[in-house]
Amino acid sequence: MKERKVMESSSSTAPKRTQIAEIGKRELLRRLFEGTGFTNKQLFAGDSSKQTVSINRLMMEGVDFDLVYTPLKHLGYKSALNALGPLYARCYQPKALSFTLALSARFAAEDIVELWTGIVAAAKEHNIENLSLELKASMTGLAIGITAQGEQDPKTIESAPKPSGTDLICITGNIGAAYMGLHVLEREKVAFNKIPASEMASYKQPDLSRYKYILSQYLSPEINPKIVEQFKEASIIPAAGYFITDGLAATVKELCQEHGTGAKIYLEKIPIASQTMEMAKEINMDTVTAALNGGDDYKFLFVIPLSEHEKFHKEFPNVDIIGHLCKPEAGALLVTPEGAEIPIQAQGF
Amino acid sequence: MKERKVMESSSSTAPKRTQIAEIGKRELLRRLFEGTGFTNKQLFAGDSSKQTVSINRLMMEGVDFDLVYTPLKHLGYKSALNALGPLYARCYQPKALSFTLALSARFAAEDIVELWTGIVAAAKEHNIENLSLELKASMTGLAIGITAQGEQDPKTIESAPKPSGTDLICITGNIGAAYMGLHVLEREKVAFNKIPASEMASYKQPDLSRYKYILSQYLSPEINPKIVEQFKEASIIPAAGYFITDGLAATVKELCQEHGTGAKIYLEKIPIASQTMEMAKEINMDTVTAALNGGDDYKFLFVIPLSEHEKFHKEFPNVDIIGHLCKPEAGALLVTPEGAEIPIQAQGF
Repeated sequence: MKERKVMESSSSTAPKRTQIAEIGKRELLRRLFEGTGFTNKQLFAGDSSKQTVSINRLMMEGVDFDLVYTPLKHLGYKSALNALGPLYARCYQPKALSFTLALSARFAAEDIVELWTGIVAAAKEHNIENLSLELKASMTGLAIGITAQGEQDPKTIESAPKPSGTDLICITGNIGAAYMGLHVLEREKVAFNKIPASEMASYKQPDLSRYKYILSQYLSPEINPKIVEQFKEASIIPAAGYFITDGLAATVKELCQEHGTGAKIYLEKIPIASQTMEMAKEINMDTVTAALNGGDDYKFLFVIPLSEHEKFHKEFPNVDIIGHLCKPEAGALLVTPEGAEIPIQAQGF
Repeated sequence: MKERKVMESSSSTAPKRTQIAEIGKRELLRRLFEGTGFTNKQLFAGDSSKQTVSINRLMMEGVDFDLVYTPLKHLGYKSALNALGPLYARCYQPKALSFTLALSARFAAEDIVELWTGIVAAAKEHNIENLSLELKASMTGLAIGITAQGEQDPKTIESAPKPSGTDLICITGNIGAAYMGLHVLEREKVAFNKIPASEMASYKQPDLSRYKYILSQYLSPEINPKIVEQFKEASIIPAAGYFITDGLAATVKELCQEHGTGAKIYLEKIPIASQTMEMAKEINMDTVTAALNGGDDYKFLFVIPLSEHEKFHKEFPNVDIIGHLCKPEAGALLVTPEGAEIPIQAQGF
């Protein structure tokens, strides 16, 4: 990268930069896979007794990530989760991950190694059996194309209940934290860019330790790799499941549209971390807006029949019930502690 | 698009331009799917008695396509084939296609409709059961992320022979034509860009009719959608199969590397169309170089056991045998009519 970096110590000596053309794409790919336990096979044939699905994801530099403050290793890890999440949400066990990196000339082999290290770490944590990589050129910036393939016992999929009545809406952790972490990083970037070149030598990385939690939620979110196993152990299949990446509001609206239902979300039930609230206060942002429309949460929303609630809560004690389904005519509603019902707005494209 | 277009008549009145934000992403997606017979489901569960595979492809503006001379409808069609090809090559019947379009602000809803029309046409021609689309923002240009999912009877896959001995190497049509078509388009673009603004009003689209065949090979290649069925009818499964998009040379080298074999390709056996030869002559390019390293061929290379040759030729009379496997020590060789053996070079990243 040629950009100045917010998150890197300025005292480090310039690291080695190897152009990809020096090594050659084929040789670079060989080195990237060496010692990982994976072989670079573009097609992975799943278990033929299972139901197999795949999903396409695309992450674009400048839209989905900013390399000024996102370490490449974290980006690699997060990009893998970005594709694995939708499979877990629908109760599929991820089996294969296929990456295509489109790289502009400013990326050196060392950058790809960093990014790849994060991808491999995520693949191992999530017991991926086949990981493949293709490298190609880009005119501007980095684009990450991902296909994730997952599988599940067809009986399990068939036995999933349909969302109905007043089924419970649950989420797997607090939300809005990643969005507030992103705000910290954006603020530091602006401040950093204002430093005159003459003062760069004495630049010290700011102390961001009091934002540690919200920064980690943005830069290195995690997904419980055992979620599908736990559902199986508890003999529960959610009636619906979503991976929350574009904000809770958009996810709830998607749920209502896809299943022709209404939904009531209770404001005081939405879990929000204290650091999220503090940062929202610091920048004069409404906490609820941050939590509902923030994005990058990397949490799950599940719809669980009332009858399964006890079993579910036993297996996933940290999951919060934030509302329930209702008649489609009601639409997607946010219920305030005073009982007022406000239609949920989702941010557009 | 804001660029001036080589391929469009300058006398046309300015067409309507609708910003995506005016309609909203959700509504635009609804309109795009309306009347197509497809519903926008991100995950498609394949037949659970079949072996399912998926592939990831990424096409980048300025690298894989130039919108100055590539009509969006053709690009949509071609991008679908780009992902379907590798499935056919491995004898999988494509079932699902999942697209993500990352769009910069210069793209209007009308552009996406054009692109989508081509994608839908390809999906229908290739009997795709599930087609999905996601739209997102891009800072610069257009990126097309694609996942194709295919399936096959596990017994068919298991019964495929391994490449061995002097198995035949065949290709499904002439090569180098698309690359020469691309050269015509690039040349016209350069000429067009030299026209002073004062003369733009009187600009007439050049007559490119004598390049019709090579232009169509670049802009609107086709794949026989019955290829997997035909293999089944002939009771043949290729020992190996590749979709030729990065040049025949790179494909032959990939074959040798993946299967630990050598290969001999006979120069005089490589089918080259007369328009390809004429254009190569016109621009003083070596025809063989164009054919071997050109790229964008969208043809298949299959490895067929000698014993299957007759059956194969009966089912696919237009397929050419261009060489055969040999001992790995020999590497990938090009054999001249005089019998000289030249190591095949593949272009890098």
